[in-house]
Amino acid sequence: MTIRVTVWNENIHERENGIVAGIYPEGIHGTIAAALNAEGDIEADCATLQEPEHGLSVERLARTDVLFWWGHAAHAEVEDAIAGRVCEAVWSGMGIVFLHSAHFSKPFKRLMGAPCNLSWREAGERERLWVTSLNHPIARGIDRYFELEQEEMYGEPFGVPESLETVFTSWFQGGEVFRSGLTYKRGAGNIFYFRPGHETYPSYHDANVRMVLRNAARWAYNPAARVADPVSAPNVPVERAPETIEHRGPRLHAPGQKGFV
Amino acid sequence: MTIRVTVWNENIHERENGIVAGIYPEGIHGTIAAALNAEGDIEADCATLQEPEHGLSVERLARTDVLFWWGHAAHAEVEDAIAGRVCEAVWSGMGIVFLHSAHFSKPFKRLMGAPCNLSWREAGERERLWVTSLNHPIARGIDRYFELEQEEMYGEPFGVPESLETVFTSWFQGGEVFRSGLTYKRGAGNIFYFRPGHETYPSYHDANVRMVLRNAARWAYNPAARVADPVSAPNVPVERAPETIEHRGPRLHAPGQKGFV
Amino acid sequence: MTIRVTVWNENIHERENGIVAGIYPEGIHGTIAAALNAEGDIEADCATLQEPEHGLSVERLARTDVLFWWGHAAHAEVEDAIAGRVCEAVWSGMGIVFLHSAHFSKPFKRLMGAPCNLSWREAGERERLWVTSLNHPIARGIDRYFELEQEEMYGEPFGVPESLETVFTSWFQGGEVFRSGLTYKRGAGNIFYFRPGHETYPSYHDANVRMVLRNAARWAYNPAARVADPVSAPNVPVERAPETIEHRGPRLHAPGQKGFV
Amino acid sequence: MTIRVTVWNENIHERENGIVAGIYPEGIHGTIAAALNAEGDIEADCATLQEPEHGLSVERLARTDVLFWWGHAAHAEVEDAIAGRVCEAVWSGMGIVFLHSAHFSKPFKRLMGAPCNLSWREAGERERLWVTSLNHPIARGIDRYFELEQEEMYGEPFGVPESLETVFTSWFQGGEVFRSGLTYKRGAGNIFYFRPGHETYPSYHDANVRMVLRNAARWAYNPAARVADPVSAPNVPVERAPETIEHRGPRLHAPGQKGFV
Repeated sequence: MTIRVTVWNENIHERENGIVAGIYPEGIHGTIAAALNAEGDIEADCATLQEPEHGLSVERLARTDVLFWWGHAAHAEVEDAIAGRVCEAVWSGMGIVFLHSAHFSKPFKRLMGAPCNLSWREAGERERLWVTSLNHPIARGIDRYFELEQEEMYGEPFGVPESLETVFTSWFQGGEVFRSGLTYKRGAGNIFYFRPGHETYPSYHDANVRMVLRNAARWAYNPAARVADPVSAPNVPVERAPETIEHRGPRLHAPGQKGFV
Repeated sequence: MTIRVTVWNENIHERENGIVAGIYPEGIHGTIAAALNAEGDIEADCATLQEPEHGLSVERLARTDVLFWWGHAAHAEVEDAIAGRVCEAVWSGMGIVFLHSAHFSKPFKRLMGAPCNLSWREAGERERLWVTSLNHPIARGIDRYFELEQEEMYGEPFGVPESLETVFTSWFQGGEVFRSGLTYKRGAGNIFYFRPGHETYPSYHDANVRMVLRNAARWAYNPAARVADPVSAPNVPVERAPETIEHRGPRLHAPGQKGFV
Repeated sequence: MTIRVTVWNENIHERENGIVAGIYPEGIHGTIAAALNAEGDIEADCATLQEPEHGLSVERLARTDVLFWWGHAAHAEVEDAIAGRVCEAVWSGMGIVFLHSAHFSKPFKRLMGAPCNLSWREAGERERLWVTSLNHPIARGIDRYFELEQEEMYGEPFGVPESLETVFTSWFQGGEVFRSGLTYKRGAGNIFYFRPGHETYPSYHDANVRMVLRNAARWAYNPAARVADPVSAPNVPVERAPETIEHRGPRLHAPGQKGFV
Repeated sequence: MTIRVTVWNENIHERENGIVAGIYPEGIHGTIAAALNAEGDIEADCATLQEPEHGLSVERLARTDVLFWWGHAAHAEVEDAIAGRVCEAVWSGMGIVFLHSAHFSKPFKRLMGAPCNLSWREAGERERLWVTSLNHPIARGIDRYFELEQEEMYGEPFGVPESLETVFTSWFQGGEVFRSGLTYKRGAGNIFYFRPGHETYPSYHDANVRMVLRNAARWAYNPAARVADPVSAPNVPVERAPETIEHRGPRLHAPGQKGFV
């Protein structure tokens, strides 16, 4: 059973900045997809902002088990309708993994319902990610921690809801900490936020990061059939109530009338 | 120390439907405000959809400790900018209590990041709300359960994130259950969802419901000063890092440059 | 990859009560094991209170991926040392599923740290279990709810900690509700509590219950290697700190001394 | 309304170690009690291991709103019955605050149901505690972080259940992180774990630590009346069911018989 992943990237820095292009000649998305494809149980391909519908047509999302999202400079260019479509796909059961600066992407902010802000510093400092949920499937293969010699700093307070589980917590050389691996569920969809991946450092070439990406795809994948209409609020008329009851008292809705909800 | 509450209501059914007008001659908002004002520690007044800015100016929200929200037929008429303003006030520390059909209001859906859907039936059936968090301050004064002889049914699955605490769970005569008292936190703001209050039944005249409303206001109130800018993502330059570090490696942002985040 | 399950049962009622013997001629454990063995990916066998070490030797637990626990009349007869051994196995990564009256078993009470009490009634009333976490793997194959025509009632408040996820919530004919499917994690071990299974009713012959049992085994299984010593608190001496530091100030412990922790 | 606090201390290091006696001439408990008594709304006194019943008689716990617990060298000397009595008091609604090495105390381990282990180093290194729950009442008065120039290191993974809220997360000079302020609820009781306070450093003289101690007492305090019997599992006979039902089918318990639960 293969997990079908779409790696989405705004694909800006790679084309406009020589440093980033040098680190990621195939794009950040290309590097991530290669990491995901390395062990055969995941089949990843890519979509970018510049494609029609940002590469995220209804059909594409319907056949995506898990979506990875990388964005930074062009969050505002993502069309609202596409961001909404992504959220509905999540609610219907698609897994999603948000990477690094995607904390400020439209889909992440909408799914969190929170400011999603943080403090930051681009100084090439050391980051050490500690496992804070023992033997969590997303941390599989990591012992107690792993290090990235150069990364951007993200600092607390991180403006997100309490997660279901805090899988990683980061230590930074400059003195900050950050909850850097967080699980959520919205509707039927599993969500993972994973902090590393600033575009000027080779984090997605790091073996531990690549292992976590694969773990995250497997964790976020829900094999159940998608929920057909994840926003419907069905009326259950009296005659179809699980228990026999009779209508009593006043009513606002005429029988058979569509609700306001 | 008085808790300043604003009770917001779309104020539609009371003006257009005789049954509702008969139950709530001073409006649902008026009845709720009276319940809140009953013990002197809360000072509640009202705002409605029809007022300029729906009665929710920046200044009004700034001096509101806890906002109560009732809406049903006119969710779509709430301006997006006002809904966003309410969310930012919550993130900055304003408490908020969503009542009954407000599960589909714009602010609730935005703060949850989830479909917020449910099943429903307007049959005047019995609801029994069980306390599922022992001695929770919002359940203060309720023993093990309380009953509403006639209410609209809301049934699971309720499309919301896992709450911090499940304070009440409802039993319905027709066979359904519902998580009917749920706590959340988004940014610095405390959020409570409370299920009862269909417009054609006198639920907000019920003594237990009124007690829960007061408890909820006290629980949601955060006396800390509001967060000045709840969405800012401040840069922490190298020279102001808590620990002494030096800049290393490539950088995307020129020193002093505003980030994309 | 086969999941190795041990189904533990106190095995009292089946031998002492004709009604229970009639429903479960092979024991409650035998019926549960057969349900688990039905699809080939799980290999379940049994252990009972009456065996040496209650059938739960160190070796047996070491080769058990997921332990199921049914007990009712003889909680007190479980040796403290064996209950402690089960908890340590969970902390090291063994999954565990507690069934029905196991809410008052020694391992469950120890793992919850809470009273685990509830109200109850043996009246053969109808129970309807609603899915309260959409598409959760433990609810796989259940649509919105399933029914058991006769069950014992368990009522809220249920004295357990807030769960990670509430998978099922029960409606009872007599008017109560109950959180009847709850997930937890303690140490590296996944824990599921599942309510149905009073000994005088044929609940473990019910097709939906049997499906949930299999789902629960798959969910609770953690393929990671067991944590070798799940209670150790290792000292990290200065010379092995991840960052270079020097010792400063007074110290209670002489270098190399074992800590009190 | 005064909050009545009992500060419990094993009271060993202060009497046996000159360094600790120099820092805490009135005992760690005396210093903590003074911090709590500083603003008039809290009335704290002390109890120690050496007193009869460790100073924790049934009556003493009954009139304690919030118990603070400091222990390190003598966890094993706390009588099991007293530890159990403390847990029952928590379940009935007493608040409790566990400090530093109390992570390995009997009451904490019992209330968590988890190994509660961690890694540690006594090197006098810098600790920086970051607020990870914005405007949380326990962090009231702390901006984004505060520092302790010399503390013992505690490192992740910390073997505790996922908390309701993570209020503080610590950065350590030697490279580790730790979730150092965690909230829980067990039964009706609020629980807070707060990391700082190694006996060879003057942490309980620190103004920020003292403020957090007061905040924690106020947060943990539940004004509701104690639950009379926090472990009872009452039978609800058919004739007292909230809904009218009739007994059906076989039964194990004779009418009026005490349950096994």
